[in-house]
Amino acid sequence: MPRLALITEFDGTEFSGFQSQKNGRAVQDVLETALGTLFKEDIRLTGCSRTDAGVHARCHLSHADVPFVIPEDKVPMAMNALLPDDVAVKEAFYAREDFSARFDIKGKRYVYRIYNSHNPSPLHARYSYFCPYDLNMDAMRTAAGFFAGEHDFEAFCAAGGSQNTFVRRLSEVSVRQSSSCDEMIEIEVKGEAFLYNMVRIIAGTVLEAGMGRIPADSVGEIIESRDRQRAGKTLPACGLTLEEVYFDGLDARLR
Amino acid sequence: MPRLALITEFDGTEFSGFQSQKNGRAVQDVLETALGTLFKEDIRLTGCSRTDAGVHARCHLSHADVPFVIPEDKVPMAMNALLPDDVAVKEAFYAREDFSARFDIKGKRYVYRIYNSHNPSPLHARYSYFCPYDLNMDAMRTAAGFFAGEHDFEAFCAAGGSQNTFVRRLSEVSVRQSSSCDEMIEIEVKGEAFLYNMVRIIAGTVLEAGMGRIPADSVGEIIESRDRQRAGKTLPACGLTLEEVYFDGLDARLR
Repeated sequence: MPRLALITEFDGTEFSGFQSQKNGRAVQDVLETALGTLFKEDIRLTGCSRTDAGVHARCHLSHADVPFVIPEDKVPMAMNALLPDDVAVKEAFYAREDFSARFDIKGKRYVYRIYNSHNPSPLHARYSYFCPYDLNMDAMRTAAGFFAGEHDFEAFCAAGGSQNTFVRRLSEVSVRQSSSCDEMIEIEVKGEAFLYNMVRIIAGTVLEAGMGRIPADSVGEIIESRDRQRAGKTLPACGLTLEEVYFDGLDARLR
Repeated sequence: MPRLALITEFDGTEFSGFQSQKNGRAVQDVLETALGTLFKEDIRLTGCSRTDAGVHARCHLSHADVPFVIPEDKVPMAMNALLPDDVAVKEAFYAREDFSARFDIKGKRYVYRIYNSHNPSPLHARYSYFCPYDLNMDAMRTAAGFFAGEHDFEAFCAAGGSQNTFVRRLSEVSVRQSSSCDEMIEIEVKGEAFLYNMVRIIAGTVLEAGMGRIPADSVGEIIESRDRQRAGKTLPACGLTLEEVYFDGLDARLR
């Protein structure tokens, strides 16, 4: 059967996350329903990331085996005609038969957005977390600087995950002002793989360093402590967007 | 009584517009309820613009007479604690007693956003109109160039307004690519005052010029014709944001 890969964008506000679960509206369900209509049989998708309820994605990768070929350049428009406004297929391609959106990805890039001003912004509320306190950007950058590399991230993992190990490798955690909005701070996290709520806890720790609640210099020790109590709070899902998924597109494609 | 001026931001998606009306949830109602709680009596607001249902505002001006003075720098936070997430007070000041948010404004700046790509974007859908067709930016700019100056804009007014004259003065209509998103086209309209649906019909005409449905060179004749049938379609409200209100802040403030 042809293996179809989809790159999708979704507004996570009204979703329980990507992955199907007993309760709640999952992105996977909505995409599988549209695929089922298009291909006239039940289709099962595998995603690159479960994503938490409320988290957004600009570039989520998934794959499914389909019973026949619809030209890949026709798939997005056909799917988008069937999908609700909060999820869309941006690109589709036929992949080699053993390509996996889950196992063949090399990493992901997330951005956590903090709207930092005295008053909230209704026009930014859906895609950011509002923080009215003065933030020290230097302290946030110092805190962010401790995360790159391979570490045991147990201090940055919410209870409820099912991992065998807490060791993960991050290639970069950085802090910047948004180029399009002066009040928006973006915490960018790039890595191979992530623990449950890991990016939101890293963002919370960097934010608390900016507020002076956590000494920026102590973040290395907090990582080493493997103590969830010492890291910052888990920030709300609305501020988080999966911006990019890294995979070898040439290797993935059916030739 | 002290006259309080408010600069507010709102996400128009769930509102029937700024102005109170028999049915629907108006921004004015929500603000008046918060003012009533804060000042412990019924307060009546006057706005700079009614705004259509679904239209957003980054900077809407209104005023109200209030029974006592709460320091103006405390008003936004006090109001925002009472307001829903889709409306916020960004700034408040006490105005001279005859200042009117309706009559003392010198103009307004609107931006109509068009997301122009083959596939829709769920993360931009709330604040833009999706257009999948190839657009000729030069033709859009040519069409936009006809609007500046004083004209009878009857061709750009929806039925249902209550104006005495269709003559309005626009200082600028321009078209640009957004600095933060390559697929986003922004049609900016600045003017003293506007007719019912005027910006959305101007945007629709500029868009149809970009699609080749209306010859860009004919827009001057369309204005002169005063014939609503010759202008473009009224684009959906979600793409429109009131970005700025022009008034003399020094003259407006109580001294």
